[in-house]
Amino acid sequence: MNSENFGLSEKLVSSSYIRQGSQARRSHEQLIRHLLEQGKCPEEGWSESTVELFLSELAVMDSNNFLGNCGVGEREGRVASSLVARRHYRLIHGIGRSGDIAAIQPKAAGSSLLNKLTNSVVLDILKLSGVRSVASCFVVPMATGMSLTLCFLTLRHRRPKARYIIWPRIDQKSCFKAMITAGFEPVVVENLLEGDELRTDLEAVERQITELGAENILCVHSTTSCFAPRVPDRLEELASMCAKYDIPHIVNNAYGVQSSKCMHLIQQGARVGRIDAFVQSLDKNFMVPVGGAIIAGFDESFIEEISKMYPGRASASPSLDVLITLLSLGANGYKKLLSVRKEIYLLLAQELKSLASAHGERLLHTPHNPISLAMSLDGLQAESDKAVTQLGSMLFTRQVSGASERMSCVLANKPARGKKGGAEAISQMDLLNMAERELLKLIRPAILLGASPNLSGCFH
Amino acid sequence: MNSENFGLSEKLVSSSYIRQGSQARRSHEQLIRHLLEQGKCPEEGWSESTVELFLSELAVMDSNNFLGNCGVGEREGRVASSLVARRHYRLIHGIGRSGDIAAIQPKAAGSSLLNKLTNSVVLDILKLSGVRSVASCFVVPMATGMSLTLCFLTLRHRRPKARYIIWPRIDQKSCFKAMITAGFEPVVVENLLEGDELRTDLEAVERQITELGAENILCVHSTTSCFAPRVPDRLEELASMCAKYDIPHIVNNAYGVQSSKCMHLIQQGARVGRIDAFVQSLDKNFMVPVGGAIIAGFDESFIEEISKMYPGRASASPSLDVLITLLSLGANGYKKLLSVRKEIYLLLAQELKSLASAHGERLLHTPHNPISLAMSLDGLQAESDKAVTQLGSMLFTRQVSGASERMSCVLANKPARGKKGGAEAISQMDLLNMAERELLKLIRPAILLGASPNLSGCFH
Amino acid sequence: MNSENFGLSEKLVSSSYIRQGSQARRSHEQLIRHLLEQGKCPEEGWSESTVELFLSELAVMDSNNFLGNCGVGEREGRVASSLVARRHYRLIHGIGRSGDIAAIQPKAAGSSLLNKLTNSVVLDILKLSGVRSVASCFVVPMATGMSLTLCFLTLRHRRPKARYIIWPRIDQKSCFKAMITAGFEPVVVENLLEGDELRTDLEAVERQITELGAENILCVHSTTSCFAPRVPDRLEELASMCAKYDIPHIVNNAYGVQSSKCMHLIQQGARVGRIDAFVQSLDKNFMVPVGGAIIAGFDESFIEEISKMYPGRASASPSLDVLITLLSLGANGYKKLLSVRKEIYLLLAQELKSLASAHGERLLHTPHNPISLAMSLDGLQAESDKAVTQLGSMLFTRQVSGASERMSCVLANKPARGKKGGAEAISQMDLLNMAERELLKLIRPAILLGASPNLSGCFH
Amino acid sequence: MNSENFGLSEKLVSSSYIRQGSQARRSHEQLIRHLLEQGKCPEEGWSESTVELFLSELAVMDSNNFLGNCGVGEREGRVASSLVARRHYRLIHGIGRSGDIAAIQPKAAGSSLLNKLTNSVVLDILKLSGVRSVASCFVVPMATGMSLTLCFLTLRHRRPKARYIIWPRIDQKSCFKAMITAGFEPVVVENLLEGDELRTDLEAVERQITELGAENILCVHSTTSCFAPRVPDRLEELASMCAKYDIPHIVNNAYGVQSSKCMHLIQQGARVGRIDAFVQSLDKNFMVPVGGAIIAGFDESFIEEISKMYPGRASASPSLDVLITLLSLGANGYKKLLSVRKEIYLLLAQELKSLASAHGERLLHTPHNPISLAMSLDGLQAESDKAVTQLGSMLFTRQVSGASERMSCVLANKPARGKKGGAEAISQMDLLNMAERELLKLIRPAILLGASPNLSGCFH
Repeated sequence: MNSENFGLSEKLVSSSYIRQGSQARRSHEQLIRHLLEQGKCPEEGWSESTVELFLSELAVMDSNNFLGNCGVGEREGRVASSLVARRHYRLIHGIGRSGDIAAIQPKAAGSSLLNKLTNSVVLDILKLSGVRSVASCFVVPMATGMSLTLCFLTLRHRRPKARYIIWPRIDQKSCFKAMITAGFEPVVVENLLEGDELRTDLEAVERQITELGAENILCVHSTTSCFAPRVPDRLEELASMCAKYDIPHIVNNAYGVQSSKCMHLIQQGARVGRIDAFVQSLDKNFMVPVGGAIIAGFDESFIEEISKMYPGRASASPSLDVLITLLSLGANGYKKLLSVRKEIYLLLAQELKSLASAHGERLLHTPHNPISLAMSLDGLQAESDKAVTQLGSMLFTRQVSGASERMSCVLANKPARGKKGGAEAISQMDLLNMAERELLKLIRPAILLGASPNLSGCFH
Repeated sequence: MNSENFGLSEKLVSSSYIRQGSQARRSHEQLIRHLLEQGKCPEEGWSESTVELFLSELAVMDSNNFLGNCGVGEREGRVASSLVARRHYRLIHGIGRSGDIAAIQPKAAGSSLLNKLTNSVVLDILKLSGVRSVASCFVVPMATGMSLTLCFLTLRHRRPKARYIIWPRIDQKSCFKAMITAGFEPVVVENLLEGDELRTDLEAVERQITELGAENILCVHSTTSCFAPRVPDRLEELASMCAKYDIPHIVNNAYGVQSSKCMHLIQQGARVGRIDAFVQSLDKNFMVPVGGAIIAGFDESFIEEISKMYPGRASASPSLDVLITLLSLGANGYKKLLSVRKEIYLLLAQELKSLASAHGERLLHTPHNPISLAMSLDGLQAESDKAVTQLGSMLFTRQVSGASERMSCVLANKPARGKKGGAEAISQMDLLNMAERELLKLIRPAILLGASPNLSGCFH
Repeated sequence: MNSENFGLSEKLVSSSYIRQGSQARRSHEQLIRHLLEQGKCPEEGWSESTVELFLSELAVMDSNNFLGNCGVGEREGRVASSLVARRHYRLIHGIGRSGDIAAIQPKAAGSSLLNKLTNSVVLDILKLSGVRSVASCFVVPMATGMSLTLCFLTLRHRRPKARYIIWPRIDQKSCFKAMITAGFEPVVVENLLEGDELRTDLEAVERQITELGAENILCVHSTTSCFAPRVPDRLEELASMCAKYDIPHIVNNAYGVQSSKCMHLIQQGARVGRIDAFVQSLDKNFMVPVGGAIIAGFDESFIEEISKMYPGRASASPSLDVLITLLSLGANGYKKLLSVRKEIYLLLAQELKSLASAHGERLLHTPHNPISLAMSLDGLQAESDKAVTQLGSMLFTRQVSGASERMSCVLANKPARGKKGGAEAISQMDLLNMAERELLKLIRPAILLGASPNLSGCFH
Repeated sequence: MNSENFGLSEKLVSSSYIRQGSQARRSHEQLIRHLLEQGKCPEEGWSESTVELFLSELAVMDSNNFLGNCGVGEREGRVASSLVARRHYRLIHGIGRSGDIAAIQPKAAGSSLLNKLTNSVVLDILKLSGVRSVASCFVVPMATGMSLTLCFLTLRHRRPKARYIIWPRIDQKSCFKAMITAGFEPVVVENLLEGDELRTDLEAVERQITELGAENILCVHSTTSCFAPRVPDRLEELASMCAKYDIPHIVNNAYGVQSSKCMHLIQQGARVGRIDAFVQSLDKNFMVPVGGAIIAGFDESFIEEISKMYPGRASASPSLDVLITLLSLGANGYKKLLSVRKEIYLLLAQELKSLASAHGERLLHTPHNPISLAMSLDGLQAESDKAVTQLGSMLFTRQVSGASERMSCVLANKPARGKKGGAEAISQMDLLNMAERELLKLIRPAILLGASPNLSGCFH
């Protein structure tokens, strides 16, 4: 309420109480002021009441909520169902304009503020998480894969001749598809087995560059977060190579924001070489529903170029989710989640190690992978081919989800050898003979510990 | 509650009342059964309580809501904020898989059902609205423009040599951008002035096809819904031409579902010729928040091909919105909205006509445009260049939104001649000298009538 | 947001849009200002967004929502469940203080405002509905019956010797119980049959007064709204009699606010004689959940005396419900509901009349009852005793609720003669022989018409 | 969904996933089954999704949510505002019937179940909290004071001659008013100062009984929870005395459920003597909004008698709140809150003790009061009369609420001597000279610790 209304309230309720109420309101306003002024994630999380107050303030600024508004166009934020209106806090206009997904909408000052602030708060969190020199980012309501596609489509205008994308292999379908959809030919570079780890084969990458010719290469498409025994790509070296050959470099950092190691790699890569954009999933890093990604980079104008490639207005829903979440957690809350995840990861590694050795198997040694763990299943594999699949389905029916499918990606001594097109390749696996009950006994408590405070899976 | 629980309840509350309650529950179940069985929009709209019951049933089927679930992957539907969980009815997993946006998710039976049913209900509505032979469609959480881009990217794989898209001009930025983003060169074909109407120049289109060579043309990109004095493209003739030259044909039907005329054009085009896909906006046709589109077509396998091009999972938010809305309205409710819109449109045309003549101006005669109206503003233009802009801003500050910007698109005798790239072209305008008060006096009541029952703008 | 925050927003989003947003906010503030200033129900209903904005403004003024508040007492508005907090809009402190249910709470300026405004808005509606000279009222979170009890308990302190309450019979259990619970002896005065109507026997009332002695009588307890063939009490004459003998007069106006006739009776009674308080149900008159009543009167100090009798703080839930409802409807919306109810009532009477005559029965002629209708069922009764009960249960299983139980109260030629204690008396009934199908055929359409726009039952 | 609908779903989504979803649903059903079967608070709290699923199941059983229901009565659960419907989960019919607040409603099987289950779950919690032999209880939507009034009004019918209530003094306005409102004369028995504690003067009580005559006494009205230096009444001895003289005994246990000591006193009192009913606040013991109480006792028929005294239906809102809260917490969650409260209380006592001694003051030794603490403020009082009031208001403006007002109740050497009517009496106070800053420094951290996990104030 404004001061006039507080004044009137003093005629109904004694003025000292109203004044205290008005001061209390001001303390919410102060939080909002701070957010508008700094554009940063607040240190301490906001209460639900501040969050909802703020959202309703934004909503009243959108023309569909103007009292007496007469919308005559085809896009006026009309909503038929009050269930729908309510679940979007009456913010109906989406984000962006036909010209630019980051642009301001004349009809929707509130939604426009939401969009600006979300991008600004997310940028702050990317910095806090380790990529201190990131210059710009925006939330886009598309999957990580489709967001990578948008990056590639943007680069096409800069490099009209380019046909290839150099891609150190990672067995994840949508990254592969992102390149295909954009109309490019992925050049899959197999990884090297170093100890237990599968790591970037830098020589092979350079060989491909020189063979194909730098001008024919759209970009190098590298990956941080991945399943063990693959480990994050050697970003520093790749970034330097890109700089040397003047080739753009796009990093798939899908669920890497949660890991200081992944973020550090990006920061270092950008410092010593070239990274044009890095893309991360909203749901995997910020505990929001599936459906959004962040496209970030070190050159503001290139990120703007990408944002201008999205034709049309877009859903504000992922932006709204991540803004609510980050305001509620606060920077401290988010940082705490990150450190808890790290602790749980170490605990799990230790427990899996002793389990493995109790069965004559071993936890693979993959120190460069800060997120995922793999263990050998040689015995199980020796027994029968089906036994491994069965383990996965046993886990599934026991409501341990996420593990089973990854389990089948565990590569031991024989690294995967797929045909070109990688994602379709089926890997050879040597799996451990193990009573599933024992495995579950271990996994469940470790997971139950980790499940709720955790950001995203600490075990694969 | 299941029958066991109803049985137990009879020990607490007298059994005849419980039995009535259980029958009442069954009547909700019957509605749901009908939906699952037929996959159609119910004739009569559901009450909010049935809708919410149904959504909570879907939610409990998703693994993130399993009691005792241990998610160990990186994508487990974790949500940090209860505000966020609630606004999505705890449906967190989004839609699709990395392979296909229409695919089923093992971890999320409920969200998968939501996705299937939404697409099925929307297909039913497209049929009801006039495209009776539509074979398949899916909702995609992207703008109409980005959805067109996805169609073009899909066609690229079928026509690797093609570089051009034939595009009868329409002054709307994001359709133009949709082609640019996909990496193609739009070939803008200017429209012909027939009477007051700007209509497709079929000869010019055919000339471009033969000049450029059919194999070099990705597709013809036509438009139905548009602002007067432009009228919907001659779809029948274009579709026949596409069939003749074996060129794909993509139709931008952005806000055309609301108009039986637009839908009829598509139906006819597909009957006599070739239409590969037609794309429409969710918000403009179904009164939901900005952010989704429907990609539909007559060949199931081609539509599936498009749905398989989207790399990654996607937001379920637009699907959820449109499902809630259509279940709440019912087919009858939706049809009623369509017929009310038609009535208001006629009323508005009539009133604008008498207004115009009172000022020595005229309502342009654009009978082929069933959605939008234009009037001359010659007098105003004669007075000064600024006067026209001022009229727009006057409307805006009087909270008549949507009209002002369109007003500036009104083309009279001198059709727009933009440079190649069309959307950026600035048109010459002859505008009517008119006291803005008079205009407002007319527009406001007409609009107030139309505003809430209306689907989308009936006046531009 | 305050002006400082709007200022900051202009740095993020262009200032003309922000200014329009801030003006839009002001239009909500203006509505709130008007409410605070006038304390009246707004003419036009508020949008949901204004209502919710207002409630969230109130909530931030309560100490449980102060950021950094340290509650150390036993009553600090602590809430364990966020579901619960949310459904009360975080207004947790209830209404009133231990001293007075209408009093202001130091810890809860927002809830106190809510309480004051609700009582003020409700008072306005009582005036609009016909009791123009009502001086004061308050909402109490108790049933109508319990509220009557509170009135009687208050009167006890004024008339310590009194033991009796004079009560023109009405067959409704809780009014009877209200007197018993308060510890008084109801003196049931049977009604007179005038034509078809059962009306107050004024002579019998006066006889009782003189017999028992005025000083031994706590009050006369009369009734307006009731089921035909009983009609509202002769309030004018009763009020005059109360004035003459200096006996308090409490009116049970349970569902009478919806009827201008009932309200007119109260207004007239107060004008020519004495009415100390009149009590009405919230749910039956204002379409809110069961649980509240309004105690109103013409002497502010007596109403205050009653409000000071409630020991302790009370639930704000019924106040919140009725405030939301009246702000949403607006005075015009409420008045429209009243007039629609009247129309439907006339239609129903007419239809029932022709139905009755088609079966050799008749609609009882009860012109003084503006709410309820009764028809003879002589034939049915003649057939068998069970037939009548069966009709009731037939209606029930066909989901016509509310009719069946009332049906059994239909009194024809033989008025009910209960033993003292009235409410327990079982009446003799002569009921009409009628095919239930015919009845239903009529009732259902009439009711379906009336059901949703209607305030409360127009048929009993 | 029922099995038929799950079956149909298997045609849309692969059957193994649907089956898992259906099993997941069953696990929610199992929780509900357990609740219905046992009528007890579940050990482990339910998730929000189970709670909401359950409430929506209850709602569909109420006639106002029947699809196609035709309500024709005056009480049909009609709701005008969807905001209101939603916040009550569409449970509109309230609880009870005109005959009995615990009775079942034919029109509302769901609300009736809600009512029964709430009373049953609350009974379970009372047992768990220490009154193991409690036989019956019900939730009533009235303040503790008004609930006490209802108990007294019920007793009147058993003891028509009685005029007095014996009341060991407690300085709390609404307990006093509860007797006045019911129409009885409170006989205030001053407490004895034993050490620092103010304790029941048993001899004085017995003297009053014999002086006034047992048959003239409605009941003894004792108190457990109270502010130090008063301590809970000697319930065992009072209960024995009541048994001896055949006088009913009503215990005000306002915020005593949280304290095992208070509950133990009641259990013991009932074992060795007579306790007819004990009354507790909902908000103070269960962290729900203000507005409800629990009336409990050891004789089922007497409790039923009270529940039958409430004339009319009542609000279900407090029942709904406490049911949601207890299902969400579970018995374990509630017990954990109790034990945390105990720990914090000890910590606070210890810290206050050292603070007091640092200032030449002392924490009063009140070991029989398990909830509240008092410290001397002699120095402050010596300084000036205003100094004490100022300390209270200093605390208030520093957002330490609840302490200040209690502070003024601190009695040191000179026990309060009020005039008859007790609650109005103003006490003499000797208060400690203390820099308020020091006090706050201590109080705030102690309180911040306690604030959220705490049930109700541990400091007064």
